[in-house]
Amino acid sequence: MTEDGARGIPADLLITGATVLVHDDAGEVSFADRHRILVHGDTITAVEPDTGPAPAASLVIDAGGTVAMPGFINCHTHSPMVMFRGAAEDVPDERWFNEFIWPMEVNLTETDVEVATWLAAAEMIRAGVTTFADHYFDMDAIARVVDASGLRAVLGSTFFSSDGAAGLERSLGFALERRGTAAGRITTALAPHATYTVTDDDLAATAEAAREHDLLVHVHASESRGQTRHSIDRHGYTPVEALRRAGLLDVQTLIAHGIGIVAEDVPALSAAGGRVGVASAPKGYLKHGPDSTPVRLLAAAGVPVGLATDGAASNNTLDVWESMTYLALVNKAAERDPAYLPARAALRHATTESAAALGMTGTIGRLAPGHQADILLVDLDAPRLQPIHDLANTLVYSGRSDDIDTTIVAGRVLMRDRKLLTVDLEAILDDLRPRLARLTDRSHGRSIQNYDA
Amino acid sequence: MTEDGARGIPADLLITGATVLVHDDAGEVSFADRHRILVHGDTITAVEPDTGPAPAASLVIDAGGTVAMPGFINCHTHSPMVMFRGAAEDVPDERWFNEFIWPMEVNLTETDVEVATWLAAAEMIRAGVTTFADHYFDMDAIARVVDASGLRAVLGSTFFSSDGAAGLERSLGFALERRGTAAGRITTALAPHATYTVTDDDLAATAEAAREHDLLVHVHASESRGQTRHSIDRHGYTPVEALRRAGLLDVQTLIAHGIGIVAEDVPALSAAGGRVGVASAPKGYLKHGPDSTPVRLLAAAGVPVGLATDGAASNNTLDVWESMTYLALVNKAAERDPAYLPARAALRHATTESAAALGMTGTIGRLAPGHQADILLVDLDAPRLQPIHDLANTLVYSGRSDDIDTTIVAGRVLMRDRKLLTVDLEAILDDLRPRLARLTDRSHGRSIQNYDA
Repeated sequence: MTEDGARGIPADLLITGATVLVHDDAGEVSFADRHRILVHGDTITAVEPDTGPAPAASLVIDAGGTVAMPGFINCHTHSPMVMFRGAAEDVPDERWFNEFIWPMEVNLTETDVEVATWLAAAEMIRAGVTTFADHYFDMDAIARVVDASGLRAVLGSTFFSSDGAAGLERSLGFALERRGTAAGRITTALAPHATYTVTDDDLAATAEAAREHDLLVHVHASESRGQTRHSIDRHGYTPVEALRRAGLLDVQTLIAHGIGIVAEDVPALSAAGGRVGVASAPKGYLKHGPDSTPVRLLAAAGVPVGLATDGAASNNTLDVWESMTYLALVNKAAERDPAYLPARAALRHATTESAAALGMTGTIGRLAPGHQADILLVDLDAPRLQPIHDLANTLVYSGRSDDIDTTIVAGRVLMRDRKLLTVDLEAILDDLRPRLARLTDRSHGRSIQNYDA
Repeated sequence: MTEDGARGIPADLLITGATVLVHDDAGEVSFADRHRILVHGDTITAVEPDTGPAPAASLVIDAGGTVAMPGFINCHTHSPMVMFRGAAEDVPDERWFNEFIWPMEVNLTETDVEVATWLAAAEMIRAGVTTFADHYFDMDAIARVVDASGLRAVLGSTFFSSDGAAGLERSLGFALERRGTAAGRITTALAPHATYTVTDDDLAATAEAAREHDLLVHVHASESRGQTRHSIDRHGYTPVEALRRAGLLDVQTLIAHGIGIVAEDVPALSAAGGRVGVASAPKGYLKHGPDSTPVRLLAAAGVPVGLATDGAASNNTLDVWESMTYLALVNKAAERDPAYLPARAALRHATTESAAALGMTGTIGRLAPGHQADILLVDLDAPRLQPIHDLANTLVYSGRSDDIDTTIVAGRVLMRDRKLLTVDLEAILDDLRPRLARLTDRSHGRSIQNYDA
């Protein structure tokens, strides 16, 4: 696989001798031994057998003995919430929101968000997350960190109908202003909070704006089976039907969680023809019960299911590799079928399905010519990974992000030998720690939002 | 906490400045900041505030900024099965046994078992597993590796009633010969395979031998709800009742898995008065369905539940830290209760309950005077662990064995700065790799055992 025109021009980056995770024409994952990857600028220009004379390149990385795989894509997170990691555990959902998270979030300044996002960036680069879809407040702060850290992101500014007309306006303004910035690494989305906090009229206006400006819509919907039942009791239809009525299934829409998606939603989702994706963060779901995103149902409807972590206040990490392992195990458990969601399917969710869920097929999620050079090099030296009978099994069931040696985004090396090259972790922690007492103060009793699901 | 008599004698090991995971009188986990740990020989002699002049010691480890915690205890594994890690995935249970594992196990020589156990030892030391309870064949080979690697183990030689009288004799012979070897780091068990592969008479003879020789009995029982139903259909009683009738609830018995333990088993288990423990390996259980060891039911019966990994052919790692995280999450899911099995309870299962399940209370599982010096030092530097609002939450929900910097068993440092000091991993892999084609050959169609659950 070589892109025309790249031959003869010295590459900016050449990775040699790797076992490369590739996708065949049917989209299935396989591994190409002893291959090399050429990168010109931010783009992969060739993935080919590592034989014959090596092409000229400014930077050569000998990746012998490692696996080169596409960077992980976090399809739904609130990255600054790393500041609340472990601050609210072992409590029911309602208390988690009303007694902990919202009263703490009201303390935030834009600078707090920026500092916390730096910590998230450090964690993501170490975990091999090269793209993240964020849905939060103070998105300009997050955009600045994306720009400076070298990460790629899909950013949406959260709004509620309680904000009035200013909510959608602000979300749209941010999306139009920031799209294509950070040398093209930032794409943007409209980010209505959820079907139960944004009115049907505002959802319809969001769909209209998305169509007009060709923007992704990133929204929490159908987050639990209880939420679906509640919606039916209150409105007579499911959250997915609310999205359909608003026109959101006719544009590129990313549904966060979708645990409550039911069989009656399938016709509407099928009709969306792959424009609608779902982000699944299975680790954190276990805290609340066995229900998880119904991957088998969504596959039957042609809906791509991408991997996510949600915020670290619920998931405890921003580690998408971890989500990949949990996705396989939790869906086997739910289906009572050890053969369901085998390792290669989990890797497909981590790569092409995650890209599709963000509407970024052809841009990220594959190591193939024309795709962005978002590349991980994974060491196989840990005894936990040995011996290797089947590399897909090794990666999904035994592997961890801790095995990643090198993280590359848009052709730029952000981590090498596990050393962060664009983030000063110690400085970030020195900045963050004095803020924690104020950030976690709940004595004021206020909260950002009093809504119920 | 200081043991009398140790004062004045220079320590062999002094660990300074650590945050030490300790247990209060009620057995609950807490953390003691800036403490030091003194070790004389293989035994902890003091855990005390790190103030005043430091005692003399042959080796001093500055553990400032790290957490010192008891080594992990793997209450049920088949460590040599690391050789089949990832060789049989995404297949139903019956095919896993009949088409993969048993036909591969018939290929094993004692040398294969020894080489594979060395790989397991490397993995366990890296994962902070300081004690493992093994249930397999060729146990002399495993004992040699325990001796040479510096690990601690509870070893039992598996037998089936199909072996005839020789089975129990061999298991007992091994147990009596090897107990107390490896400078006391090896304790032993009788290891009947399971309630469905060992007759009631042989189970009764096992109980009698255990009583006579004061030995632990380590047995697979009640491995699934289906197995319990099957036992009731076939015999009229549950697997736990089979153990009770055999007299195995009157001796120290370790039940592997116990997923099928039901409410009607509680009176018999309660009457055992804590002598009977259960080992839970929750990660691998997810491959088969949502059912897991019923921790809440067992707690009500006063039964300690220890952590385990089972073999790496099903669990993919021998990482007990991972089991700790899964135990908390899976039991919250099963109980549909986010408040159930909070982080400190998970740490209690990882420490004192695991020790109790092996009948080793007072010997391992606590950092306290008189206990064996099985100590881990955990780095908190990873961005995934920061910031720290509650150390128990950090360890259980964000932490991983990859964060362990130092592993100490019986006062001897087996890993420092993540470097293995008693195991040559490269040499082991060089020895193991040429064996793999023969080990995984299934063309002969034979299997060790044809039994059904």
